[in-house]
Amino acid sequence: MIVLGIDPGIGRTGWGVIEVKGSRNTALAYDCFETPATRETAARLVDLRAEILRIIKKHKPEMVGIEELFFNTNAKTAMVVGQARGVVLEAIAENGIPIISMTPPEIKTAVAGYGKADKDQVGKMVKMLLGLPSVPKPDDTADALACALACSFSYKMKLA
Amino acid sequence: MIVLGIDPGIGRTGWGVIEVKGSRNTALAYDCFETPATRETAARLVDLRAEILRIIKKHKPEMVGIEELFFNTNAKTAMVVGQARGVVLEAIAENGIPIISMTPPEIKTAVAGYGKADKDQVGKMVKMLLGLPSVPKPDDTADALACALACSFSYKMKLA
Repeated sequence: MIVLGIDPGIGRTGWGVIEVKGSRNTALAYDCFETPATRETAARLVDLRAEILRIIKKHKPEMVGIEELFFNTNAKTAMVVGQARGVVLEAIAENGIPIISMTPPEIKTAVAGYGKADKDQVGKMVKMLLGLPSVPKPDDTADALACALACSFSYKMKLA
Repeated sequence: MIVLGIDPGIGRTGWGVIEVKGSRNTALAYDCFETPATRETAARLVDLRAEILRIIKKHKPEMVGIEELFFNTNAKTAMVVGQARGVVLEAIAENGIPIISMTPPEIKTAVAGYGKADKDQVGKMVKMLLGLPSVPKPDDTADALACALACSFSYKMKLA
């Protein structure tokens, strides 16, 4: 099964595609899509949608895990991240791909066994679980891969 | 000039199309698009995008005024409204239509002369300025028409 994990944002959207075969998880592609702050919000959202559609078309994920905003933030941040997240959700659903939405503590618990694991611990676990040569950078990319892994674990648990 | 005003939301998105000819403003169409709470968020966003594209295709607005979230709200509400707003912004920008983003106080000042005007006052001013037979309902629709009017006033001021 091909799983896409996404950590959405207006400035940076981390994404990672993994292949799940039994207990083996392999990273197929991962990166961080950035839009410059000098561009208008609506134009940045157009670029973000185009990138998500490109990733879907190229990697054909059968399931998408997307990071949910954790609500210890302010309304302005929530609004800005929400705009990017809405565009991503819509593009995935329009392509008929099932979505699992997970909070950062849920993702951290799934990959690091601890809901308050820090960025460093999450990055190291992602590297180990996917057998990568180094910790993916920036954090957004590592978080997206963690989300894809958590999504695949959650799916397997539901099957079991 | 054809101006589309939008008051975005996940449950209800008010919209109104007006034609501006000199000092005369005419309402061409207005309504409130609703998505049921029983549907998943991503599916509701797909429906919302389809509706926005339908309105753009049918009415060919040359400018869009969109209500900005007023930040005296909590992060959860901001996130949910943000998701809908992001989808709307993206669909409009993808069609190359200029967007003016306005806060509720800016819209109220433009149509009612007072930034803290209540819903009732805004509705009555919209009815009067557009020569409508009655106050548009629900409030989301009246707010969207107010936004379209405010957007046209703002545009004229910039030209003057």
